[in-house]
Amino acid sequence: MDMRSTAKDGFIDAFEWNILKTRGMEYKIQFTGPTGSNAVEAAVKLARKATNRTNVISFTNGFHGCSLGALALTGNHQNRHASKSLLNQATRAAYDGYYGEEIDTSDLLEKILCDPSGGVDTPAAFILETVQGEGGLNTASAQWCKKIERIARDLGSLLIVDDIQAGCGRTGSFFSFETLDITPDIVVMAKSISGYGLPMSLVLIKPEFDIWNPGEHNGTFRGNNHAFVTSEQAINHFWTDPLFMNLLNENQLSFGLHLNHISDKYNYRVKGRGMMKGIDFLDERVAAEIRRENFKNGLITETCGPRDEIVKLLPPITVSITEVDQAMAIFEHSIARATA
Amino acid sequence: MDMRSTAKDGFIDAFEWNILKTRGMEYKIQFTGPTGSNAVEAAVKLARKATNRTNVISFTNGFHGCSLGALALTGNHQNRHASKSLLNQATRAAYDGYYGEEIDTSDLLEKILCDPSGGVDTPAAFILETVQGEGGLNTASAQWCKKIERIARDLGSLLIVDDIQAGCGRTGSFFSFETLDITPDIVVMAKSISGYGLPMSLVLIKPEFDIWNPGEHNGTFRGNNHAFVTSEQAINHFWTDPLFMNLLNENQLSFGLHLNHISDKYNYRVKGRGMMKGIDFLDERVAAEIRRENFKNGLITETCGPRDEIVKLLPPITVSITEVDQAMAIFEHSIARATA
Amino acid sequence: MDMRSTAKDGFIDAFEWNILKTRGMEYKIQFTGPTGSNAVEAAVKLARKATNRTNVISFTNGFHGCSLGALALTGNHQNRHASKSLLNQATRAAYDGYYGEEIDTSDLLEKILCDPSGGVDTPAAFILETVQGEGGLNTASAQWCKKIERIARDLGSLLIVDDIQAGCGRTGSFFSFETLDITPDIVVMAKSISGYGLPMSLVLIKPEFDIWNPGEHNGTFRGNNHAFVTSEQAINHFWTDPLFMNLLNENQLSFGLHLNHISDKYNYRVKGRGMMKGIDFLDERVAAEIRRENFKNGLITETCGPRDEIVKLLPPITVSITEVDQAMAIFEHSIARATA
Amino acid sequence: MDMRSTAKDGFIDAFEWNILKTRGMEYKIQFTGPTGSNAVEAAVKLARKATNRTNVISFTNGFHGCSLGALALTGNHQNRHASKSLLNQATRAAYDGYYGEEIDTSDLLEKILCDPSGGVDTPAAFILETVQGEGGLNTASAQWCKKIERIARDLGSLLIVDDIQAGCGRTGSFFSFETLDITPDIVVMAKSISGYGLPMSLVLIKPEFDIWNPGEHNGTFRGNNHAFVTSEQAINHFWTDPLFMNLLNENQLSFGLHLNHISDKYNYRVKGRGMMKGIDFLDERVAAEIRRENFKNGLITETCGPRDEIVKLLPPITVSITEVDQAMAIFEHSIARATA
Repeated sequence: MDMRSTAKDGFIDAFEWNILKTRGMEYKIQFTGPTGSNAVEAAVKLARKATNRTNVISFTNGFHGCSLGALALTGNHQNRHASKSLLNQATRAAYDGYYGEEIDTSDLLEKILCDPSGGVDTPAAFILETVQGEGGLNTASAQWCKKIERIARDLGSLLIVDDIQAGCGRTGSFFSFETLDITPDIVVMAKSISGYGLPMSLVLIKPEFDIWNPGEHNGTFRGNNHAFVTSEQAINHFWTDPLFMNLLNENQLSFGLHLNHISDKYNYRVKGRGMMKGIDFLDERVAAEIRRENFKNGLITETCGPRDEIVKLLPPITVSITEVDQAMAIFEHSIARATA
Repeated sequence: MDMRSTAKDGFIDAFEWNILKTRGMEYKIQFTGPTGSNAVEAAVKLARKATNRTNVISFTNGFHGCSLGALALTGNHQNRHASKSLLNQATRAAYDGYYGEEIDTSDLLEKILCDPSGGVDTPAAFILETVQGEGGLNTASAQWCKKIERIARDLGSLLIVDDIQAGCGRTGSFFSFETLDITPDIVVMAKSISGYGLPMSLVLIKPEFDIWNPGEHNGTFRGNNHAFVTSEQAINHFWTDPLFMNLLNENQLSFGLHLNHISDKYNYRVKGRGMMKGIDFLDERVAAEIRRENFKNGLITETCGPRDEIVKLLPPITVSITEVDQAMAIFEHSIARATA
Repeated sequence: MDMRSTAKDGFIDAFEWNILKTRGMEYKIQFTGPTGSNAVEAAVKLARKATNRTNVISFTNGFHGCSLGALALTGNHQNRHASKSLLNQATRAAYDGYYGEEIDTSDLLEKILCDPSGGVDTPAAFILETVQGEGGLNTASAQWCKKIERIARDLGSLLIVDDIQAGCGRTGSFFSFETLDITPDIVVMAKSISGYGLPMSLVLIKPEFDIWNPGEHNGTFRGNNHAFVTSEQAINHFWTDPLFMNLLNENQLSFGLHLNHISDKYNYRVKGRGMMKGIDFLDERVAAEIRRENFKNGLITETCGPRDEIVKLLPPITVSITEVDQAMAIFEHSIARATA
Repeated sequence: MDMRSTAKDGFIDAFEWNILKTRGMEYKIQFTGPTGSNAVEAAVKLARKATNRTNVISFTNGFHGCSLGALALTGNHQNRHASKSLLNQATRAAYDGYYGEEIDTSDLLEKILCDPSGGVDTPAAFILETVQGEGGLNTASAQWCKKIERIARDLGSLLIVDDIQAGCGRTGSFFSFETLDITPDIVVMAKSISGYGLPMSLVLIKPEFDIWNPGEHNGTFRGNNHAFVTSEQAINHFWTDPLFMNLLNENQLSFGLHLNHISDKYNYRVKGRGMMKGIDFLDERVAAEIRRENFKNGLITETCGPRDEIVKLLPPITVSITEVDQAMAIFEHSIARATA
């Protein structure tokens, strides 16, 4: 699995040249088991190894997976409780905006971490999603992300961005953090990275933190050759094509306008960023009803948020404007029925 | 040790009649090993047993002892780090006023605890000091304490007050929480409870939570007969005597006036409550210098706070007004020298 | 992912009819993230949920994956140490034969678990490999496995067989435990289950323990449709064909005879079972040299065991007798060179 | 508390000259909170600090206290379970003789600890009682203790002897390990050390491991001056007096002969060593009946062992021969009644 293959070489070339180099980024690529939680587990272990610390800061409403190491970082009560395990070596902090606009939660976090009697151990890492896909489409501002990055640097902690759901163009740029002016030490990717729904995940590691010894984090399915092939194709086909970037921008614009229109009309709040948005219906029964109605009419949507009160839309980023229009018409129809 | 003795019976009678009954309180008395940390460990175990939960909320700058169960609740970095142990099954929250006057930290705590994706497990208990003796003489307001109590009740969690340092009259009433209008489920006492410096500690338990089976939390030195005798004497001698209460009130008044005068003159902040106050000199070197100077002139003081920047005064509560005057003169002299 | 697909239905039908029903077995099939460690994490969580206990017994030299929950069960020092995490909620016990032939390690385990002062908490589950693929090709006898099963039943604990490496025909029968006369409560499968090297894993659960609520253990890549297709084909093509079973038996016989011959000639011990065998060269440098020499001559082998002192051979179970002969000739040649 | 006092100086002088120096021992004396569990917590923290490891090996039927750090080392199910806490950072091993005479449990322990895939992390320390007072009066042989000491040295782990119950002359010598030819790195003492039943405990530390920084393990009641006075008297009065040593030897002899006689007559097994012996009645109801009968006739005894099936006798070591005779007569009478 660790050996080279044509498919693997092809993917690595494409990713390095067409994703990393064009963005002036330098990362080593680690292939873990092809699920997001495998990649999160690897990222966290590496941060602990690099810092010789154990604590990891994760955020309210964060979702990072269901294996025990990842689950300790995940906020969801149902997932946590089902494990009947002690989830430890992690500290919860409030995400951007969690306590309202007046309170900068990064200030709260810095104060407690820098207080010798604050009682929170200096972390190995901070792990965050720039848009919280499962947690309710909460978004972190560039300013907040930069402060978290600065706090991490001050404390000698690593900054891990979990781009499993928000990455691969979902927010309009390949990485969700490109527009936030931060440079994570580790980036975790999965879900759409294969371009074709195949199991695949990546851990991107700043070269100075690539300190694994051989075999320290192993597994059988670390290289999925099928996924390498499709991923290489997706990268080379889409991410080198200016027309695709135009389409993506137009899609974002159209998608956003539709949602704002709905929001104004029905007086619900739009949440999220780019092609990863939804509407907070405040009531999980309404949200569930809308999801069912959408499905009946051919539109697949999900509910998310602490109480599943938000309907989330993740259209394919290659969708056409016409399809966006159609989808939004179905969505509006469902809202009208459910809230009648 | 569990058997009755004249000394034990005498203490129990005195405590029940002259402390609990006169205050309309009803608690079972448990004698643990005669140190504060033994008592804290017992309190936390009992709360976990009563709720079948493991998480315990403790606060920034809280100090609850150095055995592993108690240390998980203690904020101090040096104590925590020295253990080289994973301190878990505890969550840190911000104490009253920790983030400044504008932010009500009990609101922050309630929000995260009531959010199903907040990622903080519903606690077995909240443990707090009403005045943080080691953590820097921070005080909790009645309003804040009542909100914490209400949150605990809402969540089915127990409220534990650690009155080891602030109890036994130190804040002007026997229990530090008497003036705060809260009813803890468990109260932990030690330090001054023997009235004579002998090792002794207590856990006071609301009758409905006295669910220990025989031998579940045992130990050799659970009943220190010497301490029972001195404690009974202290209770019967002082706490039934109105003149003592007058003296205590006068001492508090005089002590407070002196400190306010010093604070005004030197422009440092007074912290604490009752006979448990100090001045924040902002700089641990100044504080250390003042402590040394005090000692040279016959006044024993301590430094406390996250960086030992606060000089703490805990005069015997039976001190005379003249002695308070003398002590304050020495203190002011030390400040003058140290800040010259 | 949780929705039905033709591929998924096809696989489920094939697995239920041609694997489970023909063996008189009844299990629910759970699709977790497609790696062995995801499946192990799910199995352990389910056992904890079913028993409301946390401790899990795993065995010396056991290997169950590298995510934190799985890693706590894995014996390998390098993997454990690299995590820089506290690996807990697990207790190590000695595998069959670990202390030599005279000591029945299941007796040791039963004694300590049944002693109220033994100090090992009653487990949620026992997890074992019937042949330890990574740990050195140690094999568990039917007698020992049955005793472990009986101890588990007596204590109300679940028996989990990790058949990730030893399953799918590797030991001569589809499940490694078919010849051992045990009925695991949970079986974990991965690696060869797709029949084609695609990421896929399964958790088989006795119906009475299928107590998951929706979404309690979720993940993106729980259904890999490519793998469903290839797995269905492998099951229907091979496991319904008597000729395949004959071939497998002949392969085992031939493979075993070759290894015994080598063992006799060079005086090293053969380890393992079925098509999962190797030779213990006692010295990791010799083993490494043989592996390199094998590779040079076109034979892929691995080293395993506590010090990588064992050369492990896992020929495809569909290999031809001629290929076995060729491989064994290369192997013997490598041994001759390395030990010359 | 950390300051010198006449009482403290007196005790230290007495202990250093009349206990340590006369035995050619060199230890630093740490005063922790005056309970055994406080001392155990301090010892374990120090071992973790000295080795930068977390795991501690403790033994079946071991009892080291009920605070969480100590409780993790304690075998008793009832105490462990009552805590409703995850007890971790500890590994259980079998005490001397636990699996019968044929199996040397130190060999089992060494094998698993030295196996890189054994799955037990290299420990910071081994903690053991030479006679298990609560666990059932099991005794460790000199040969076994020396092997444990050698394994600890080989692994760079510290050897901690918990002499809380077995120390202070209880087994015939001041330290229980004097006759075992081992040199613990840390010794924990409490119970009888004050000579008068006062709360007092000690941690004895080999000078090279006295690496505490100021205030790292603090507490209020670290110096109990009453206990210093009585302890100094006990040391100077008894442990410098050859007549006391003669009396102790005679008492042991007489006590042992009586018990052997009872054992022969009633066919129950004697357990323990020195003045710390008992009889295993195999049935906790019989043991409880004998304890009650003893009490009725003026003889205080305890039950111990996994199921409280052993009646334990701990006569004062300063008892007279006549008193031993009287006590044994009562004991035999109780046995006769209970087993009639």
